[in-house]
Amino acid sequence: MDYTLYYWPLPFRGHFVRYVLAHAGAAWDEGDPSDLARLKALPVGEQPVPFMAPPFLHDHAAGLWLSQLPAILLHLGRGHGLLPEDPARAALTLKLVCDANDVLEEITCNCGRTMWARADWDDFAATRLPRWMAIFEETGRRHGLTAGAGTMLGTDAPGLADLATAALWHTMGAKLPRLGGMLRRNAPRVAALSERIAALPEIAAMIAREDARTGAAYCGGQIERSLRAMLEETEHRT
Amino acid sequence: MDYTLYYWPLPFRGHFVRYVLAHAGAAWDEGDPSDLARLKALPVGEQPVPFMAPPFLHDHAAGLWLSQLPAILLHLGRGHGLLPEDPARAALTLKLVCDANDVLEEITCNCGRTMWARADWDDFAATRLPRWMAIFEETGRRHGLTAGAGTMLGTDAPGLADLATAALWHTMGAKLPRLGGMLRRNAPRVAALSERIAALPEIAAMIAREDARTGAAYCGGQIERSLRAMLEETEHRT
Repeated sequence: MDYTLYYWPLPFRGHFVRYVLAHAGAAWDEGDPSDLARLKALPVGEQPVPFMAPPFLHDHAAGLWLSQLPAILLHLGRGHGLLPEDPARAALTLKLVCDANDVLEEITCNCGRTMWARADWDDFAATRLPRWMAIFEETGRRHGLTAGAGTMLGTDAPGLADLATAALWHTMGAKLPRLGGMLRRNAPRVAALSERIAALPEIAAMIAREDARTGAAYCGGQIERSLRAMLEETEHRT
Repeated sequence: MDYTLYYWPLPFRGHFVRYVLAHAGAAWDEGDPSDLARLKALPVGEQPVPFMAPPFLHDHAAGLWLSQLPAILLHLGRGHGLLPEDPARAALTLKLVCDANDVLEEITCNCGRTMWARADWDDFAATRLPRWMAIFEETGRRHGLTAGAGTMLGTDAPGLADLATAALWHTMGAKLPRLGGMLRRNAPRVAALSERIAALPEIAAMIAREDARTGAAYCGGQIERSLRAMLEETEHRT
């Protein structure tokens, strides 16, 4: 094994790491959730690296433990040649990863710190969520998704920006189909790119494995129930 | 000018960028808040780079616009030689930057998405905030803050990890002194490092300039009033 990933048996943040590991052809296993819970609760002095919340990645060859999704992704991207060489595009790749991380925070009311209320969801679904979709779409437009000559997204060799984009939007659309429809309307190129990346053989195999393990779950917990309640109610109203 | 920084006239996230720019000896100016408000509200297709929220950095030489604090800091750290060469320590530096970003999110209830309530604050101040402090302290302990032979924090030449640590904790302690006291009790080495970094001549000059411009303000807005109300009430009770 090259890596051990500690994350809940859920797609959400975990799929970002899994997309990259699968695409890089890395050998990894997933830590048992009870081990994850134990690691998370340890006094910081006893943790392999002092950290607050998963995902945690153990890079066996480097003897390195990491938390923080952007740090994990950049480390893997660097180690597996998935980052643009141009410093500006490398910086924009990290910006895109941080954007994706923000979308995860927002769609879960900061990982369930509060639950969704109708008015808040309606506002989010009418303003910030489509704006996030447009940010990704416009990023794609400027970096090659239109012309077939991609410079950061939609290149011949998918890089970290493509993988993070698909891990965000394909996962959301597959688990919450109503939001998949919203994505196709607001960000058709990003939707198509995400489908294409998710269909790459190694990634498709990983998704199938994870779907068998975790079913329809997206982010889990009470916040997933709250999110689904908003989407179902919207369905009934329209 | 090498850079233009667009941020509200506040320390909070802005000071992370200012610490790095000041330490690097870069020439920068600050965009007018009305220009920032205009940039933020533009349709994404008209923004210099599609982005949601400040800080925004315009790197004039590179012709690059960036948002997302971790992306801005890593770009500056790379360009100004402030990142460790060792990939593991570079990854841990980004992890630390993301940790700092999370502390900013948590102390402002995700930038004012909700206001502080007494019970929530008491819980945060008793659990997660000291845990964050302990995470930084333990990171320092493992990376050289004890032995005087720093490998990532407290090295002879301050790097991005030191600058981000000080931008987080010195700023918080200076603007909200009660939390400065909590830091000195929970993370004495980090408190001392933060003082030392903030006292470097270029950084001290930047802080003095900004204090003259923005007074006692920390994160601004209703959420700062909510946070100060919690701290004042705590003062009265003890």
